[in-house]
Amino acid sequence: MFKFKINPWMYLFITFALFIIAGTFLLKMPFVKHTEGLSYIDALFTATSAVCVTGLIVVDTSGFNFWGQFFIMLMMQVGAIGIMTLTSSLLLFLRGELDFSRKFMVAKISDSLNIQEAEKVLVIVVIYTFVMEFVGFLALSYGFFLDGFALKDAAYYGLFHAVSAFCNAGFSTFDSSLIGSNSIVKVTTMFLIVFGGLGFYVIYNIFMTFVSNERIKVHTKIVVYTTFALIIAGTLLIFMLEKGTMSILDSFFQSITTRTAGFNTVEIGGLHIVTKFLMIVLMIIGASPGSTGGGIKTTAFYIAVVSMYSILRGNKRIVIFNRNIALINILKAYALISMYIFFLVIATLLLLYFGDFTFMDTLFEVTSALGTVGLSLGITAKLGIFGKLIITACMFLGRIGPATLITMLLLKEKTSKLSYPEEKIILG
Amino acid sequence: MFKFKINPWMYLFITFALFIIAGTFLLKMPFVKHTEGLSYIDALFTATSAVCVTGLIVVDTSGFNFWGQFFIMLMMQVGAIGIMTLTSSLLLFLRGELDFSRKFMVAKISDSLNIQEAEKVLVIVVIYTFVMEFVGFLALSYGFFLDGFALKDAAYYGLFHAVSAFCNAGFSTFDSSLIGSNSIVKVTTMFLIVFGGLGFYVIYNIFMTFVSNERIKVHTKIVVYTTFALIIAGTLLIFMLEKGTMSILDSFFQSITTRTAGFNTVEIGGLHIVTKFLMIVLMIIGASPGSTGGGIKTTAFYIAVVSMYSILRGNKRIVIFNRNIALINILKAYALISMYIFFLVIATLLLLYFGDFTFMDTLFEVTSALGTVGLSLGITAKLGIFGKLIITACMFLGRIGPATLITMLLLKEKTSKLSYPEEKIILG
Ligand SMILES: [K+]
Ligand SMILES: [K+]
Repeated sequence: MFKFKINPWMYLFITFALFIIAGTFLLKMPFVKHTEGLSYIDALFTATSAVCVTGLIVVDTSGFNFWGQFFIMLMMQVGAIGIMTLTSSLLLFLRGELDFSRKFMVAKISDSLNIQEAEKVLVIVVIYTFVMEFVGFLALSYGFFLDGFALKDAAYYGLFHAVSAFCNAGFSTFDSSLIGSNSIVKVTTMFLIVFGGLGFYVIYNIFMTFVSNERIKVHTKIVVYTTFALIIAGTLLIFMLEKGTMSILDSFFQSITTRTAGFNTVEIGGLHIVTKFLMIVLMIIGASPGSTGGGIKTTAFYIAVVSMYSILRGNKRIVIFNRNIALINILKAYALISMYIFFLVIATLLLLYFGDFTFMDTLFEVTSALGTVGLSLGITAKLGIFGKLIITACMFLGRIGPATLITMLLLKEKTSKLSYPEEKIILG
Repeated sequence: MFKFKINPWMYLFITFALFIIAGTFLLKMPFVKHTEGLSYIDALFTATSAVCVTGLIVVDTSGFNFWGQFFIMLMMQVGAIGIMTLTSSLLLFLRGELDFSRKFMVAKISDSLNIQEAEKVLVIVVIYTFVMEFVGFLALSYGFFLDGFALKDAAYYGLFHAVSAFCNAGFSTFDSSLIGSNSIVKVTTMFLIVFGGLGFYVIYNIFMTFVSNERIKVHTKIVVYTTFALIIAGTLLIFMLEKGTMSILDSFFQSITTRTAGFNTVEIGGLHIVTKFLMIVLMIIGASPGSTGGGIKTTAFYIAVVSMYSILRGNKRIVIFNRNIALINILKAYALISMYIFFLVIATLLLLYFGDFTFMDTLFEVTSALGTVGLSLGITAKLGIFGKLIITACMFLGRIGPATLITMLLLKEKTSKLSYPEEKIILG
């Protein structure tokens, strides 16, 4: 009998493809209505955008009836949890089918978790997600209520935006995203985005330092420091470049949301061109590994910066927080970044060729899709069939690409590598 | 007595700065005339562009009288020879002042040449330069003569363009560069650009395989293969993207010239936006180390690609042409590339902020300046004072940056590194 063998890393690819296909058909169900109607390509685009927590839209989310919006919320949740628990579920999935030596390799799949921890992570991540979203739901509902919505509507919008913000999805039931919202809504959203974007390695690590006496890992330090530094630098730069026409709160909001969430409290198209370029850079850097966010990731960015600095100072070893980082680990970070830039260039060339948009609009759109950010200068809805397919592919690759690559790399590692003494940094 | 100590790598910086300052004052001499007059900032810009063999112009080169054009030609020649013989001259300069251990370190300055070879290289490079330029001068003069110029004019234009092409400078005495030239001019120019862009390591190595029995180095193979591959790929892509509106010869020409020379045989502004983006990518990659060209260099690009591919295949060692490449050598390549991208981003942000140009025009201009290419979508002449200073800084940094960095890195290497068994690749 023919036996089809699934590589562990294909598991992720297939799972997400199935999620998207299922989502596409759900959106085409007869009881799902959209004011403008919904073609198959638009349903595919919307499902991909939701499952890959991107937030780019070709049709207004507000145009969907309850069921359409509900399915979008469901897809965001499933997509986000799916990535966050990838390691755990992958391990659980494989457990029964592997011989010991292979299991030993797979146990290393996350570079920092072992097979016994896998189930624990799964549980903690799910609990963490729902606790955060519940708190966010309460705060956002209150915020929307203050904005004059009826209690029932405020609760509904609160739930939708809590899920969307924590999952860093960026979908909004409002046509103009969060422009004009009050400070409670903005600040709650910012918190949800940041806590959703830390990644489950960090969440698990921090959780374990509280319950047992586990130490704070280097990975956690890198993520927290880099996230903090990027948010502050982004806020100040955006505020400065916009020369005071944007409030410091909105600059703060935009700095946080640009790296992967995709909400906006100001009109992106109206920003200064230099601010747009800065946002492209922030979108490329992105969020942290094992999170709902995309981009080249904070850890890879941090490693690239530190390694550049060390090399230029003539150092032979790369030391991060008093730990030697294996050179091969650094090369992996660069390989991931190179791969990302390669896809960015190819996708930009394709969209420039098939689309009819300016260079800024095109690069912004591709970066946003590949980084699963969801911000747009307004060309998403104007995309032709090729353009929609290119952006759909970008969202999919941007979402599962890095995790797949890293999983693939770990499975290919020779067992001899297991004795490496240096501390490893998680990249994808 | 106060003794000012010059680091070897500062030598390069200061030498070029002095060349530029001298050039600026030469262009302001009373017997140098320009039809439009010439301000100090424009003289500085022109001198920087000539010494750094970039070719960007704020005033028409045709507007200069003989002396102006002569000084430009002189500056291109001095700037090009200056970089090409950097290693040699640096070694000669330092020889008398160093104790033995330091001399031993400096002897490694080029990663592949020793101190005994330094003088030999200097001689060979100078002879090579003048032989190539003389042959080019004859062929180009013949070409211009066929185009209907009087013999004396044809010879003058032949000389100017031979120097400009071999030095990859891109200056032309014609306002529309080489648009409308005949095939002899185009093909000769292409040959001069390619042979000028190989870099003196390659020239010296190939020369030595003929006179003695020296082997072809890995560095030489990488440069030749990568140069060849990039030219072919660029030609086909440009031809394809322009959908047959550009001849295959012009596509070939543009593919060669874009990576660093900066001549054009077609109107760059009239190209498809996707072709412009492709040209930005080619300009970023650039020419080869130790050559008159700029960019991140063919070797760094090759190493990045091969290392990405190896890492993604799960390899622990990076093998190039059956040689192990030290991981630290690869990290140096990435450090150089990161540095380049860092400057590219900063300069683009600055020019977007101070200029009032589109994103494409701005990025194209900055890439062209930093890669010392000299192509422009037409904004160079419209730059304000800040814009001119930014682009001047880009040309200077793009020209001396990589070589300076690599020199600095080599001087900082600990002697223990001298025992490394792997073959090294020259980067900057
Ligand atoms: K998003
Ligand atoms: K040039």
